[in-house]
Amino acid sequence: MSATFTQTLASAWERNNSLLCVGLDPDPAKFPAHLKGRDDAILEFCKAIVDATADLVCAFKPQIAYFAARRAEDQLEDLIAHIHERHPGIPVILDAKRGDIGSTAQQYAVEAFERFRADAVTVNPYMGRDSVEPYLAYPDKGVILLCRTSNPGGSDLQFLHVQGGKAGEEPERLYERVARLVAEEWNRTGQCALVVGATYPHEIARVREITGFMPLLVPGIGAQGGDIEATVKAGRTGAGTGLMINSSRAILYAGTGEDFAQVSRQAALETRNSINRWR
Amino acid sequence: MSATFTQTLASAWERNNSLLCVGLDPDPAKFPAHLKGRDDAILEFCKAIVDATADLVCAFKPQIAYFAARRAEDQLEDLIAHIHERHPGIPVILDAKRGDIGSTAQQYAVEAFERFRADAVTVNPYMGRDSVEPYLAYPDKGVILLCRTSNPGGSDLQFLHVQGGKAGEEPERLYERVARLVAEEWNRTGQCALVVGATYPHEIARVREITGFMPLLVPGIGAQGGDIEATVKAGRTGAGTGLMINSSRAILYAGTGEDFAQVSRQAALETRNSINRWR
Repeated sequence: MSATFTQTLASAWERNNSLLCVGLDPDPAKFPAHLKGRDDAILEFCKAIVDATADLVCAFKPQIAYFAARRAEDQLEDLIAHIHERHPGIPVILDAKRGDIGSTAQQYAVEAFERFRADAVTVNPYMGRDSVEPYLAYPDKGVILLCRTSNPGGSDLQFLHVQGGKAGEEPERLYERVARLVAEEWNRTGQCALVVGATYPHEIARVREITGFMPLLVPGIGAQGGDIEATVKAGRTGAGTGLMINSSRAILYAGTGEDFAQVSRQAALETRNSINRWR
Repeated sequence: MSATFTQTLASAWERNNSLLCVGLDPDPAKFPAHLKGRDDAILEFCKAIVDATADLVCAFKPQIAYFAARRAEDQLEDLIAHIHERHPGIPVILDAKRGDIGSTAQQYAVEAFERFRADAVTVNPYMGRDSVEPYLAYPDKGVILLCRTSNPGGSDLQFLHVQGGKAGEEPERLYERVARLVAEEWNRTGQCALVVGATYPHEIARVREITGFMPLLVPGIGAQGGDIEATVKAGRTGAGTGLMINSSRAILYAGTGEDFAQVSRQAALETRNSINRWR
C-alpha cells in the first residue's frame, strides 16, 4: 500500500527541513528568452524549476488554469509524471479549486487523481459535503478545501458572520464555520487540509485553533505580500510543522536569463530559511 | 459587434419558444452500443444530441469535467465549434464552476472564452468580487454565478443565516446575500446570471425577487427530481422568460439504441412543452 498524502507530506517536511511549497504557475510571457517559442516551453520551464528546488520544498503545486489556457494539459501530465519519477516523496498538489455536485465531482476526481496523478487537489466548499466526498473516496489522496483566501474579495463571503454556532458563543465568520465543518465532520478519514491566506495571520491562528494538527496550505507570501514571520507563528503546530507555505511568482520569475533555475533555487533557499527562522 | 450572451439568450428564448437548456454530460458508460469504443465517441454522441434538439432549446451546457476526465478537451473544442457553426444563435454555457484569485481567473477566462469559445461560464462566488472580474472583462460574455445549488450538501453553507443585511431586516441566508451582492454590486455591466436549483422552488422565488430580470440557470429537474410547475411559477419573469431550465441525464440517456438522438429529441420536446405549460 502506498503512503497517504498526509504521510508523504510529513516525510517531506522532515527530510527537506522545509515548509515551502513552490507553486507552478507557468506564464510564457515571463519565461526567459531562450525558452520562448518552444512547443514544450511550459514543460521545460517547470521541469527546470522543479529539478532546481526539489530538495528545498515540502510540495509542488501546479495551477491547472495556466496549462488549460494554453491547451497544455499534456505538458501538465508530463510534468507531474516527471516529479513522481525524479523526485519521489515530494507530493504534488493540483491547484484546481473544483466544486460540483457528486456525479460531476467524481469526474473531477478522475481528472485530478487518475489522469494527472496528483497527490492532492484543492476544492471549493461552497456546494457542501457531497461535493467533497468523491475526492475522499481515494483513500491515499489529500483534499485541500478553500477556507480563507488571500485575495481582496475573499472577505465578501468568507468574512460574513454566520449564526447557529455553539450555544452561548459569539457568531462565527463563514471561514471559521468552514474550518469547523471540515475539522469536525468532513475529515473523518484524515485526508483534509485547508487553504488559509498569508495576508491574514490572525485568521491563520484562528483556523489553527479550530483544526488542531490539520495541514494548512498558505498562499500569499511573496508577490501577494504576506508576512513570513507572522504566518509561521500563527500557523505552525507544536512540532513546528503543519504548514505548506506557497510561493509562486516570487520564485518562478526571480531570474530572467539562461540561469533562471539557479536564481529560482536561490530564492527558494532564502524563502525556506526565512520560514525556518520562525518555526 | 457581436451580440452579447444576454441578447443571444433572449433571442433563443423567443425563436425556439423554449426555456430548456440541455446539459451535455457525456458518460461513455451510458452510450449506445454502436458508439462504444470509438475514439471520437464523446464528440459524436454530443453532436447527435445537439443536432436533434437545437430547435427546442435556449442553450446548451457542456460540463467540462466529463471531457477533462477522459483527456477529451479537443472533442469539447470541436463540439462547441460545431454548435456555433451549425446552430448559430444558440448560446453555449461552459459549466466549469471555476473560482480563483484574479491572476488565475484571467487564465480560466482565456480557457472558457478564447480556447473553448463558450458564450458564458459558470463561476463559484466563494472567493469574492475580484475572482469574478476577469470574466466580466469580456463584454459580450455571460458569467453565471453559483447561488443556491441543487445538491443535498448545498445547504451546508448556502443556507446559513448571515448578519449585516439591511437595517431592521431579518438576517438573510448566504445564498440570498450572494444574489444581492451580484444583483446590486457585481452586475454593473448586465453580464451576470445565477444558478438556483430546481429542488428549492421557494428559494428560486426569493432569488427572482432579489434580482429582478436576471437570467437564472436552474439545474435539478429530471434526474435530480425538481418539479417543473413549481420551478417555472417561482422563477419566470413577467414576460414568461428569465429561466434556463437545465436537464442533462433525463434527455441524454432517454434512449439506448441507434435511434438514441431521436428519443432524446422526444424527451426534450416533452420537457420544453411541460415547461411552456406554466410560463
